[in-house]
Amino acid sequence: MDIAALSWLDPPDGPAVELLDQTRLPAEEATVTCADVPALVDAIGRLVVRGAPLLGVAGAFGVALAASRGDDVAQAAAAIAAARPTAVNLGRGARRALAAYQRAGQAAGEEHENLKRIAARGALTEARLIAAEDAAASAAMAKNGLGLIPRDARVLTHCNTGALVSAGEGTAFAVILAAHRAGSLAMLWVDETRPLLQGARLTAYEARRAGIAHAVLADSAAASLLAAGEVDVVLTGADRIAADGSVANKVGTYALAVLASYHQVPFVVVAPMSTIDPDTPDGAAIIVEHRPAEEVTCIAGQPAAPRGTSAYNPAFDVTPASLVTAIVTERGVAQPVNAGTLRVLSAGSSIAEGPPADVYVER
Amino acid sequence: MDIAALSWLDPPDGPAVELLDQTRLPAEEATVTCADVPALVDAIGRLVVRGAPLLGVAGAFGVALAASRGDDVAQAAAAIAAARPTAVNLGRGARRALAAYQRAGQAAGEEHENLKRIAARGALTEARLIAAEDAAASAAMAKNGLGLIPRDARVLTHCNTGALVSAGEGTAFAVILAAHRAGSLAMLWVDETRPLLQGARLTAYEARRAGIAHAVLADSAAASLLAAGEVDVVLTGADRIAADGSVANKVGTYALAVLASYHQVPFVVVAPMSTIDPDTPDGAAIIVEHRPAEEVTCIAGQPAAPRGTSAYNPAFDVTPASLVTAIVTERGVAQPVNAGTLRVLSAGSSIAEGPPADVYVER
Repeated sequence: MDIAALSWLDPPDGPAVELLDQTRLPAEEATVTCADVPALVDAIGRLVVRGAPLLGVAGAFGVALAASRGDDVAQAAAAIAAARPTAVNLGRGARRALAAYQRAGQAAGEEHENLKRIAARGALTEARLIAAEDAAASAAMAKNGLGLIPRDARVLTHCNTGALVSAGEGTAFAVILAAHRAGSLAMLWVDETRPLLQGARLTAYEARRAGIAHAVLADSAAASLLAAGEVDVVLTGADRIAADGSVANKVGTYALAVLASYHQVPFVVVAPMSTIDPDTPDGAAIIVEHRPAEEVTCIAGQPAAPRGTSAYNPAFDVTPASLVTAIVTERGVAQPVNAGTLRVLSAGSSIAEGPPADVYVER
Repeated sequence: MDIAALSWLDPPDGPAVELLDQTRLPAEEATVTCADVPALVDAIGRLVVRGAPLLGVAGAFGVALAASRGDDVAQAAAAIAAARPTAVNLGRGARRALAAYQRAGQAAGEEHENLKRIAARGALTEARLIAAEDAAASAAMAKNGLGLIPRDARVLTHCNTGALVSAGEGTAFAVILAAHRAGSLAMLWVDETRPLLQGARLTAYEARRAGIAHAVLADSAAASLLAAGEVDVVLTGADRIAADGSVANKVGTYALAVLASYHQVPFVVVAPMSTIDPDTPDGAAIIVEHRPAEEVTCIAGQPAAPRGTSAYNPAFDVTPASLVTAIVTERGVAQPVNAGTLRVLSAGSSIAEGPPADVYVER
């Protein structure tokens, strides 16, 4: 990938997971090396590494790390899954690597002299597979999403969904890049995405590297742009998609969905199948993480509000399926978005089994 | 007033206009002394002094300052009126003081030896009258607005509309204070109001001084609060209200109005009659000030986006009358909001002629 958001380090440098510190971008391209699971859990909590697809990859490599160190792997997987509650990919990645660890161990047999090493190799192989799947899913989402982007499109996006959140080119940003390469992107409007400014800091950084014409705006200014007819489509990622098509994503996404609907502008979510959680029946069942007040009341280390001011700081919000025009996945596009169209996508062939299925559209 | 946002200094300290520097709140309560009109115009441009009603007062005192110094008063009034384009009160205050200056001069006669001093005194008296009217309007708006606040109300507000923008207790914030004193305010939700954070910096400061239970939120989180049923009414001020009831106010207001309508929560604008501009026929005729990119791309002096990133940074947005549940003025309440109800309010008695008229409601 273009921006190495996550790397696995073998001995002698490791075993360790090396992360590009996303809290310090764009000022600095620094890395954080996590030599054990507590360090990784801390990095996930501080958003050194973030974004649903990459959290899945990070969760799996975290389990591989615990296995390589000879730590309690089941405990490590549980700790990683609990590091943040909303993105379904995190726990899913950790569980997949744990299952691979257990399978490899069982295959070797309890008596094998290199049992732990073989099991650890199984976890690491699974983590690498998840990363490879994510890169492939990213490319397929870009291809599938491109069909929803009109010519000379002015796209509005929220938060950060590119190579920094993926082993590939990302989710919504992968579609944006594809449109840019196809010559059909006229303008990228970047919501700054308070409180942690992932849009201003990270998406602007990725847009600049890709040579995309772009401008940053305060999240609250998006309504003016929509009213002025300056937006052709809104594209976002997702952290968890419930079985009914409700989308949890970075706080502010729901506001954009309501505004897009009011202005009759398509609102499109781009996410890998691993973000769809059939075990979460609807939006009300999605646990939304609330983060510290200081993320809102302090900016760049300086108080923005009087000291001690309380804050309402949900990291995510939930958009009902009725406000989502389409969900683009590596398997195809669910449009309209509802439990039925998502079930059809889920029943399709796995990305591991072959090329992505044709775009699925139910009208 | 409780917080001296603007004071007139007579000789020997003056003539000068002393301003509480609102760009440095809440960290510091510093003042800026403007000894001439260019200094005042600069302070207005930098938002040292801000808010529609107070800009009207500042504009008038600015003309009084030019008159006291013996400067070209008409030129000064024009420069002040042009300092910011959106708030109608600024130019209106300057023009009223200029007219008073001219009237006082004409009354004295061209031959009078103290002509300039008498004319200047006329401008200063008018500025003081505007301030007194503003304080009285503030109290009347509080009284008129209180009827729209339910018991145990959870109020969401945007930007800053209290004593810092008024010679009285403000506009929307005056209503909030009245509800607080009446024991009917359960919670004040404060939009931080990017890019310049007037909510987090100034409204939280005023709420804390008044002992109001409050919490700050990223502007984009208001949609979650509305969806959760945590908001009973949205209250904002206005910078200019067109003849058709379109409301120009701090960017983000329009987004809130769309969201409030979607969630069937009343959206109420509180503004003095001087904010209603019969010469601006509709929302499309309102000039929206666009401010420097750095307000968005830099925070607390540090780059939030890569250096050189472009920004879309309108200071205001325009909300159509159809999304505004009511406009509260010192003369009464326009509800529904349209050209007809605003005309009835405008045809009512002036605040200078007596107590505010009964609340006007057309259903």
